[in-house]
Amino acid sequence: MKIGILTIGNELMNGRTADTNSSFIAREINLQGWQVEIMMSVGDDFATIKSRLHYLLTFADAVICTGGLGPTADDITTAAIAQAFDLPLYTDQAVLQGIKDKFTKYNLRWVENNAKQALFPQGAEVIANPVGTAAGFVLPVADKLVFVIPGVPSETHRMLPEGVIPILHRHFPQPVEHAIKQTIKTFGLSEAAVDERLAEVNFNTLGVSVGFYPVFPENHLVLIARSDSREKAQKNLQKAQDEVTARLHDCIFSYGEQTLEEIIAAALTEKKLTIAVAESCTGGLIANRLTDVSGSSIYFERGLTTYSNAAKISMLGVPAEIIEKHGAVSEETARLMAEGVRKLAGTSLGLSSTGIAGPTGGTKEKPVGTVYVALADVNQTVCRHHAFRWDRKRNKQVSTETALMMLKNYLQEK
Amino acid sequence: MKIGILTIGNELMNGRTADTNSSFIAREINLQGWQVEIMMSVGDDFATIKSRLHYLLTFADAVICTGGLGPTADDITTAAIAQAFDLPLYTDQAVLQGIKDKFTKYNLRWVENNAKQALFPQGAEVIANPVGTAAGFVLPVADKLVFVIPGVPSETHRMLPEGVIPILHRHFPQPVEHAIKQTIKTFGLSEAAVDERLAEVNFNTLGVSVGFYPVFPENHLVLIARSDSREKAQKNLQKAQDEVTARLHDCIFSYGEQTLEEIIAAALTEKKLTIAVAESCTGGLIANRLTDVSGSSIYFERGLTTYSNAAKISMLGVPAEIIEKHGAVSEETARLMAEGVRKLAGTSLGLSSTGIAGPTGGTKEKPVGTVYVALADVNQTVCRHHAFRWDRKRNKQVSTETALMMLKNYLQEK
Repeated sequence: MKIGILTIGNELMNGRTADTNSSFIAREINLQGWQVEIMMSVGDDFATIKSRLHYLLTFADAVICTGGLGPTADDITTAAIAQAFDLPLYTDQAVLQGIKDKFTKYNLRWVENNAKQALFPQGAEVIANPVGTAAGFVLPVADKLVFVIPGVPSETHRMLPEGVIPILHRHFPQPVEHAIKQTIKTFGLSEAAVDERLAEVNFNTLGVSVGFYPVFPENHLVLIARSDSREKAQKNLQKAQDEVTARLHDCIFSYGEQTLEEIIAAALTEKKLTIAVAESCTGGLIANRLTDVSGSSIYFERGLTTYSNAAKISMLGVPAEIIEKHGAVSEETARLMAEGVRKLAGTSLGLSSTGIAGPTGGTKEKPVGTVYVALADVNQTVCRHHAFRWDRKRNKQVSTETALMMLKNYLQEK
Repeated sequence: MKIGILTIGNELMNGRTADTNSSFIAREINLQGWQVEIMMSVGDDFATIKSRLHYLLTFADAVICTGGLGPTADDITTAAIAQAFDLPLYTDQAVLQGIKDKFTKYNLRWVENNAKQALFPQGAEVIANPVGTAAGFVLPVADKLVFVIPGVPSETHRMLPEGVIPILHRHFPQPVEHAIKQTIKTFGLSEAAVDERLAEVNFNTLGVSVGFYPVFPENHLVLIARSDSREKAQKNLQKAQDEVTARLHDCIFSYGEQTLEEIIAAALTEKKLTIAVAESCTGGLIANRLTDVSGSSIYFERGLTTYSNAAKISMLGVPAEIIEKHGAVSEETARLMAEGVRKLAGTSLGLSSTGIAGPTGGTKEKPVGTVYVALADVNQTVCRHHAFRWDRKRNKQVSTETALMMLKNYLQEK
């Protein structure tokens, strides 16, 4: 089946807002085994919406429109689409009552303009909005379908899978019934290197498609297996996953949607371990990532961003002579920072970073991007040296990811 | 002048890559006073590129295409465009030599396939690529122009302003000669509230356009004044800026592109002040923001993420009785955290945060989003209470921004 996407709004045409809905919709449509034939953006203009929609319908079996469903004067999508097919508008009483109820509930003054959001083209079926006031609709046009949903990304993200896709399945029954998805998250290889390692895997013969999604500094793979039987799809997906694992096992950290910090959170909680962090070049970003998980206070005791040597000496007990002899950016300092923060906080583990984020501060021996990360438990301390080559912010991000990977690997081997 | 944008690539149609070029191009085009009439994305397919390009040319004076200029088999944009206008391809010898020189310089084996990147449709003018191997081109078609540049965002971001826009100006001379831009960054009001405060300002009569760019938790405004004289544009821009300042002065923190942390960095450096940070709910994010600025080690002494009560007590000297009586999330604790970290670090200033980021941990008296931020100098401590209503990550972000704004205001009033 061929799908067209039409995103509507002046804010798209003047570049004020980047259109993130199109790629979201395209990804979800692709996941169903359907094809996006054309994607287009237009401003809030009657004649334009009308003519572009007719153009899209010459290529696509269904067009998904987003945007222009608000209560204000420049929201004209519903009226424009009714006009495009010479249809009158009708008021859906249930939708109208729902909007009025919300006004009562939140003690807002009713303005008649809001009744506009209960208007739909004759023949349209309402698509409920579980997270906002603007309902969507689907309008059958000959043997094709025109969908209209709000352009607010959080609403699009709910109404597409919950409203639009089930109607598409009902209206265009597909021979391929089962699509199973598996996300695999990796860190440590460039996208090109991941691609190269997987070059010999023949995903096609397994009926599996593979997508690459770089999310700096991680690279995510999405495998989708399709088959007429669920068992076969599952079997093929497992085979493809095994092939990927065989080639990328050293850099895979997650099978599924879990973030690195969520995996660490689960492992620390399960093993009843606590952690404290001493950061230099990462500047608080390791602590920030670890505390992005709700409930992190159970295992995260404290984090110190010891930027000055005085802080490293007085709080972490790194001897001044060590810093003088080896430098604040050195394996010796990194080890003592991890051990020092662990002792100070009385935690099971201590994690540290020290390095040169740049762009200034590099030397010939220790250029910008030189980073040491160390992890200490009660028995031993491990330390790794890295040489990164990004800008300041990315050096901080990739150093943080490296430290978290070290922690994750430790927790999984333990 | 009306512009069409055509982004080309299978990765756009399957949602693997989000199209960020269209909104970038739209914004830059808008800045010139031109209008984007239509934006479209298509896959790497001869017939489709050809037909969609002809469709765009029925609306637009110029079409800007991106993507599909690489050396591999699926990069077909140049050939498809030549075909669309029945033009043969020619090899540009200078471009070919440039590519060969790069291979020699980097000691790469020459593969004949790469010569493809030196092919252009007859009649096209080459547009140099200052940051990659794929050159772009402009092709005059009757009285219109078709531009083709690479889809790699870093290359698009250079070649659009340096290559495409000057050619557009040359080919379509504009009566409006001078456009001056001013970014104004605000924090503390929703986009709708900013809009409402500015509702009465008549930017049109000043010849000034205004764009809103929300960058959570900030809202940025971009004013663009256009006039046939530079002086007049400058004068009108100043008038518009004064109107904005009169209405938004309490939430403007930057006139220009400087970030909040860069403004703070400049003020701390100029006043020779140092700072230490004690964080609870922001989890290291304040330290991370402050250390995003190169050279921050001059003023940033240390940051403590005191997640546990033990850390607040032992390192910051917050008395256990205060935490017991008022709670870790309280004005009293926030004040003592700021004072404690300042004393501990021996800095001019101490900045602190304590709150409930959520989604768990809220109570009836102190719901999720309750946050206290405090700033201490040698003479006094100020503390503010806030009630936010976002998710965990956004509560951390908005709390951090609030703490940094407090610091910035202090530094500017001092």
